[in-house]
Amino acid sequence: MPHLALEYSANLEGKADIAALCRELHAAVMASGLFELGAVRVRAFAAPHYAVADLDPRNAFIDMSFRVGQGRTAVDLRSAGELIFAAATKHCAKLLAEPHFALSLEVREINSELSWKKNAIHPRLRGQ
Amino acid sequence: MPHLALEYSANLEGKADIAALCRELHAAVMASGLFELGAVRVRAFAAPHYAVADLDPRNAFIDMSFRVGQGRTAVDLRSAGELIFAAATKHCAKLLAEPHFALSLEVREINSELSWKKNAIHPRLRGQ
Amino acid sequence: MPHLALEYSANLEGKADIAALCRELHAAVMASGLFELGAVRVRAFAAPHYAVADLDPRNAFIDMSFRVGQGRTAVDLRSAGELIFAAATKHCAKLLAEPHFALSLEVREINSELSWKKNAIHPRLRGQ
Repeated sequence: MPHLALEYSANLEGKADIAALCRELHAAVMASGLFELGAVRVRAFAAPHYAVADLDPRNAFIDMSFRVGQGRTAVDLRSAGELIFAAATKHCAKLLAEPHFALSLEVREINSELSWKKNAIHPRLRGQ
Repeated sequence: MPHLALEYSANLEGKADIAALCRELHAAVMASGLFELGAVRVRAFAAPHYAVADLDPRNAFIDMSFRVGQGRTAVDLRSAGELIFAAATKHCAKLLAEPHFALSLEVREINSELSWKKNAIHPRLRGQ
Repeated sequence: MPHLALEYSANLEGKADIAALCRELHAAVMASGLFELGAVRVRAFAAPHYAVADLDPRNAFIDMSFRVGQGRTAVDLRSAGELIFAAATKHCAKLLAEPHFALSLEVREINSELSWKKNAIHPRLRGQ
């Protein structure tokens, strides 16, 4: 944790730089001040098949799911969500200027009683 | 919202028309009467690696996750789920007639307090 | 149900045998004694785009999501999670020995009121 996973329609390939977006969202997650660098995992998956709105072939979407460990306040979670969504909105400004694009974000807590993790990156970064 | 995401075993490529299934599920979502056209986002992701049931290489699955905004009644959510699952069942009739296929659907609400969205498609379709 | 879905950074291709991992996790799910063989669906999705920790290109992750039907005790769910995570940890021992890898698992219940399923595999395996 935290885990930020993006799903997007494959017609965005060539219209959006998803690798760059992942890095910008990573920076937004860190800017919240709530998370440890070694734990941040942003990733994106293209959907080759999709059916969006009125099925215009130009229709496209990016849907983001941010999952975090329990224990943060609602205010903190909303603040992190705002930062992430603002970074995505900035990256997608051109797409949002066309009438064929939808952007979304859901934040969700992971039940710590039903969560397991091993992170070999933490010792390296904590030791710096 | 609403978001309908499918995960399926890659051995269905060539045995099922997943793009057509996405369009049929989109029609089922709209048939519920609960959602706005501009908001519907159906998509599908093939899993290249999988291990299903007794590991027979013919084993395959489609698992659907439908996420919607808060505020609808349980009756409405169940009704939308029924329509979506009926459409999927119809599309998968041949697959379900063989003893190697499993189909599933989960419906889940998105916490509106932890949800963000920008939809540039709405103004175009609302204006029609 | 049960559904075990893995997301992993695509740089693990060639470093990890994800197909073998799926089979080993399938065995762990069955070893819990809580699930019926015909229902087990393990699958894995590679993320071609990602941004992990300090963005070192060697950084990699596997994140597992295990979704099960309602009705099991918290003790049973934790026990199944332990078995799955132990199997993943064993498979990833070499990766975890390097300071560039993170492994995680979340277990979550599916609301049975908002769940639909048809399983054509069950009759075949139950009849054996």
